[in-house]
Formats: sequence, structure tokens, C-alpha cells
Amino acid sequence: MLVGIDLGGTEIKAGLVDRDGRILIRSSIVTGTGRSYRLIIEDMQKQVEKLLKDYGTSIDGIESIGIGAPGLMNDRSGYVIYCPNLFWENIPLGIMLHEHFNKPVYMENDANAAALAESLFGSTKGAVNSVLITIGTGIGGGIIIDHKIYSGSHFAGSEIGHMIVGPNFYRCNCGNNGCLETFASALAMKKYAVHRVEIDGIKTSITNINAKTIFDAAKEGDQLGIETVDRMIKYLSIGIINVFNLLDPEIIAIGGGVSKAGSYLTDKLKEEVGKMYFTHRIQYGDIVLAQLGNEAGLLGAAFLGINKYQK
Amino acid sequence: MLVGIDLGGTEIKAGLVDRDGRILIRSSIVTGTGRSYRLIIEDMQKQVEKLLKDYGTSIDGIESIGIGAPGLMNDRSGYVIYCPNLFWENIPLGIMLHEHFNKPVYMENDANAAALAESLFGSTKGAVNSVLITIGTGIGGGIIIDHKIYSGSHFAGSEIGHMIVGPNFYRCNCGNNGCLETFASALAMKKYAVHRVEIDGIKTSITNINAKTIFDAAKEGDQLGIETVDRMIKYLSIGIINVFNLLDPEIIAIGGGVSKAGSYLTDKLKEEVGKMYFTHRIQYGDIVLAQLGNEAGLLGAAFLGINKYQK
Repeated sequence: MLVGIDLGGTEIKAGLVDRDGRILIRSSIVTGTGRSYRLIIEDMQKQVEKLLKDYGTSIDGIESIGIGAPGLMNDRSGYVIYCPNLFWENIPLGIMLHEHFNKPVYMENDANAAALAESLFGSTKGAVNSVLITIGTGIGGGIIIDHKIYSGSHFAGSEIGHMIVGPNFYRCNCGNNGCLETFASALAMKKYAVHRVEIDGIKTSITNINAKTIFDAAKEGDQLGIETVDRMIKYLSIGIINVFNLLDPEIIAIGGGVSKAGSYLTDKLKEEVGKMYFTHRIQYGDIVLAQLGNEAGLLGAAFLGINKYQK
Repeated sequence: MLVGIDLGGTEIKAGLVDRDGRILIRSSIVTGTGRSYRLIIEDMQKQVEKLLKDYGTSIDGIESIGIGAPGLMNDRSGYVIYCPNLFWENIPLGIMLHEHFNKPVYMENDANAAALAESLFGSTKGAVNSVLITIGTGIGGGIIIDHKIYSGSHFAGSEIGHMIVGPNFYRCNCGNNGCLETFASALAMKKYAVHRVEIDGIKTSITNINAKTIFDAAKEGDQLGIETVDRMIKYLSIGIINVFNLLDPEIIAIGGGVSKAGSYLTDKLKEEVGKMYFTHRIQYGDIVLAQLGNEAGLLGAAFLGINKYQK
């Protein structure tokens, strides 16, 4: 049995998972950021112990513990390098969990963990090389190469949201101008539509502007909705063609809240990306919707150790 | 002993190479594009046979034959998928060489072959993950992951020159607007400077405008030279930061004709890229000059088979 933990800024999801990818039992607790990291990690330990007890087993029945979190994780040292949502920097998360449970502990960026779950049990299953792009408030990415997570030489790879794709009217939190997530995230869509209304005086039927209402409005023919979706599609397509031209994966899966727009989104993306192929002499990878939703992070985290050491 | 062949639009360079990466004997013949591909491949066969004879050996002493060419090469089928400089599409290059010599034949994009050579014997030696960016008339790229060439699922990866980084005043040959090579190649620099002179009426001391004279003029304080170099650096830095944020390699090496600008180029790149790091909490990869020059293609081609099957 495996333990998977999805550590987020709002909640910590944990579960016991079997080797077939079934989540046997799970729970969620409030993260409570702002507290000492020791308290948060102690809560996480108690959460896992309660899961073991509730499932009628003990730590002896566990192969390994895996954690995904939204940041840079040094799996070699056991330290969280940087996790802005938790205000964490240089936190010995892996070391503390290992000392407490005396089990192998693996750490990864949560989007990488989700990409692994999709490649083992979801939308990219069977693909040798695949990429997951998660689109919510920001844009995250996970790269699978040769069936394994690829996180780079300093655990800083697959930051697809920070690929610079052109000048934009506002700066990214990372300090740069032109990051993909400032064009194609849910927040970017909202900012653009609000900008068009408040600065350019565009009229719209959308009352509560957010990614969902913008997509809904576009489907119903609202001009600002269409314009905002088209702009998002244009830049996300540039991001996708850049991934194809660099990594040439078999599949790119789109996850995160914005993927709820469904085939309306992927149909438009396929059309737009298709126009930008470098050559029509090869078949490019498919663009699909992620399948595992919110479970991907926990599930992928559970399989980190197995993925790391598989041949 | 290994045979390496660097098949270009102008000349075909071939050589016998030992396992330590020494080129024992080499020759160059004119490609003669426009002729039937059979004639070109027959010339290549004769070229290799002459090298063997001149070196006093025979094909029996050869482990494998490797070919790099500027295009998409299907190493599984033995076909060149597409090689625009040679006007080749679906050409059974690998099959014909294998039938003729009865030896294992390996094919790769020439920038990938060069990246392999740099990682075995040159600027990126020892790095687990590295990237070579070759900047000449166009921009090519080679990606090494876990000491091996990474060319993607359809042999279409590492096209770094076609990463879209922002809108430009002219379109790329690939049909898209905004490709890195339309901002940062030697041709892009020339086109921009000429555009500034002819369209915008800018005055300059540069008489024969090309990448070299532009760099020379910039070093001597010419305004258009400085502006053109700065623009090139700006966009190449965006391309490099995108590679760091996606692949996080230990080293990025800059090769091709433009790399003759030397440390003047890499110093400026390091400064500009350093401003764009996603976080300063990790050490990013180094930016260095490629070391093997024109030999990289031939040398890397020779080692394709060894690289493919190494553990």
C-alpha cells in the first residue's frame, strides 16, 4: 500500500492507495498556512496515522509516502525549496516525514505528480512521452518522458505557465512580462475581460466576470466572451505548439478548472494548433482533456517512489 | 571504428571516428542538391568506401554508420521524413545505406547529433541534461536528457528556432509569426537592421550589413549595431529562459556562426537571462559557448548508435 499526499495552500488531501491505483481511503484537512511549518507537518502526520487506523492497518503495511505540492521540491535533500502558496522556503518536509514514519518519502511538484497519475491511470495512459497542462488561477505543467516524471536538473522544469509568449498589458507574479499564464489562465481571462470593460469601455452581458461566465457567454454569442476566449485560445495554442516543437509528446492533456470547458476548449485548440504545425508530414500528438480531476495530485504522489525506480 | 556523416545542403562531410572521439580521417564532397536522391546516396557510399580504403581498412572494421542531416529523420523506419535544404521528402536514406554496407545505420537531426557530440566531448560534457542552441542563418536545437538525445515521439522535437516568443514584422518560413529564429538568427539580425535603415530611415556606419558587421559595429558603439544586438539578446534570452523553465538543463551551449561573437554574446545573455529567473532560490544552468564547431555534426553522427543503446 502507498500513501499519497496532495499538499495545497487551502487543504491537505491524503489517501491510502493500492498498487492498482485505487484510493482505498482518503481524508482532507485544512492546511492553515501562516502557522509554523512544524505544526502543519505534525497535522499531516496525524492525518496519515488516522487514515492507517481507520483502514485497520499500520505503517508497516506501507511501501512509501509521496507528497505533491505547488512549488519546487528537492527530492534528493528532502527539502521544499520554495512553495509560495504556503509561504515555505527551505522546509525539511521530506526529512521530517521520514524521521517520523521511517519509510521512504518522495516529493514532487504537484503538477508533475498529476501528470504521472494521468500517465498511469488517465488521459495519457500508455504514452511514452506526454505533457499535462493544468489551467486554473495559474498554469502548471508536468512532463513525462520515457514513462517517468521529468523535473529537470534542479527540480525547476515543466514551468509551462512561465513560458514567455508575447507582450501583455500586465506583469506576471514571477516578475516577467508575457508569461503564458498571464494570457491563458482563469485569472488572465478575468483580468482581460475586466480590462476591456473598465479601461476600454466595452459593453457586455456578463455580470459576474470569471472564466466560467466568460466561456458561457462566448457559447451564447456575447462579443466580449468570444473575444476573451479567442485570445485565450490563441495564446494557449502558442504555448502548446511550443511544447510540440520542443518536446514532441504523443499527447498533451489539459487539466485544472478551465478544462471544465470541455470539448468546446479542446476542439478550438486542435483547430488553432493545427494551423501552426511546423510540418504536416508527421502526425503531431493529440490534445485531450485530463481525466482524473482533483484526484490526480494525490494518486500521482502515491506512485512517486514506484515511478522513480521503475526500469 | 565508427562512420559519421554530416549531410548538408552544400556539402557532405564524412569521417572515420574511433571510440574516443578522434576523427581518424575525413573528407568532404559536394552534395549537388537537385539531382536524384539515388545519385547523392551513391556518392555518399563511394565517399565512405574511399575513406575506408585511404585509411587502409574495410567495412568489416566498422561498428555502425551514423548520419546527421538538417531535417526530420525517422530512425525507426530508415526514412528521411523531411529535409527542406535537400528538397527531400520520404527518402529511404538509412535503408539504402544499410543495404549497401550491411551495417547498423542511425539517423538524426544534425543539431541533435551536434548536441550529442558536445555532451560527449565538448562544452556540455558530463551534464546529465543539456541543450545546444545553434545560431546561424536559422536556429536549431538539440536536447540531451539523461545523457541521451531526446528527439520526441515523432522525431520532431528540439525545434527551438520555431518557439514562438512574440509578434515580429515578418513571418517565419514555417508559416508562423514570432518564431525565435526570426528574432535571433544571423538572418533575423540582418533583416532587422536593413528594415531599420530602409523602412525607418535610420542612419548607420555599417556598410555591408550582416550578423558579423552588426556585432562589430555594436562593439564600436554604432547605434544601430547596439540596437540590433540588444534586440537579438532580448529575444534569445526569452528563448533561453523558456528552455530553463521547461527543461531546466545543467548547461545551455550556444553554437553556430553567431557564437563567434564569443563571450561578448554569452556575457550579455547571462545578464539578461539572470533578470528573468523564475526564482533565485535555485542555481540555474550555465550558458556557455559550444566547443566543437563544424566537427560536432560529424562526430555526433558517428556516436548515434552507441548513444542509442547505452544504459
